[in-house]
Amino acid sequence: MGNKTYTIYVLRLGHRIERDRRITTHVGLVSRAFGANGIYIAGEKDENVKKSLEKVVMTWGGSFHVEIGVSARKIIEEWRAKGGEIIHLTMYGLPLPNVIEKIRKSKKDKLIVVGAEKVPAWIFELADWNVSITNQPHSEVAALAVFLHELWKGKEFKFEFKNAKIRIVPSAKGKKVLKT
Amino acid sequence: MGNKTYTIYVLRLGHRIERDRRITTHVGLVSRAFGANGIYIAGEKDENVKKSLEKVVMTWGGSFHVEIGVSARKIIEEWRAKGGEIIHLTMYGLPLPNVIEKIRKSKKDKLIVVGAEKVPAWIFELADWNVSITNQPHSEVAALAVFLHELWKGKEFKFEFKNAKIRIVPSAKGKKVLKT
Repeated sequence: MGNKTYTIYVLRLGHRIERDRRITTHVGLVSRAFGANGIYIAGEKDENVKKSLEKVVMTWGGSFHVEIGVSARKIIEEWRAKGGEIIHLTMYGLPLPNVIEKIRKSKKDKLIVVGAEKVPAWIFELADWNVSITNQPHSEVAALAVFLHELWKGKEFKFEFKNAKIRIVPSAKGKKVLKT
Repeated sequence: MGNKTYTIYVLRLGHRIERDRRITTHVGLVSRAFGANGIYIAGEKDENVKKSLEKVVMTWGGSFHVEIGVSARKIIEEWRAKGGEIIHLTMYGLPLPNVIEKIRKSKKDKLIVVGAEKVPAWIFELADWNVSITNQPHSEVAALAVFLHELWKGKEFKFEFKNAKIRIVPSAKGKKVLKT
């Protein structure tokens, strides 16, 4: 999937089945499309989100790991213990343009934390980086996409997903799909 | 809000209250935070989405127009008649990096169309541009954010929202908020 220099996982906080199913699925799909190796989902254990994401992997290729019902604290502590860095995306953090170069250059594996509703204070404390994608309220889905887009400097447009059953041929009009 | 050279509206297709409320709200918030002037929401008329978005504008400032229950075809035809261009974000379209420079340079007002479920064929036909933010399935929220981020070349980080009651002071740890 291109010259990746680090492993990237996304940690989705506080998932609630009723409220968050679609948003968390979007977070997972963005993680995969923009080059993360997997996603940990903390909060309620939602087999449906896991199944939806795994179905996309089956059809569209690549490898992408999905783990549900994790403890956020445990994941963060393990990641830290293995020498990875914790990047928390939050509207309160330092602007992406001020920090992305340093984050890109660091060769550490990256755990990218995105919240649902209220994020507990200890996340801000434990994070190596609290990064804002503008200081306006918007969407964890958008924040994650822009962060990864900048981390890769747009290389996500060149990613190849192995063993895909479906591939799209980009076109000016209509839909061109290759099936194998 | 910075040296804007065109008016930008987002057209959200096929909104369904039960299924799409949160995703459409995220689409609206991203539109605002990333410098669109407003959003048209086609599909079911959802007063709650309108209220949520308008509440954010009241608190966080700027001006942002929200119109619900519109006819997508009517909006597109009106936009076209006024000399604006129609940009449809779709995984089937031409890759963003191949087209963004032309779109950025064109001084035409821009209507950015994002789908919900299945997008009808006539949208692909009527659009001046069908643009893909990678050819992988992910999220209209993410696609819109990356598109606008590239359209502005990251200037959204400098946008000022007038008459904001709350402003965030970016910080490395914790939350710093100014209230007026």
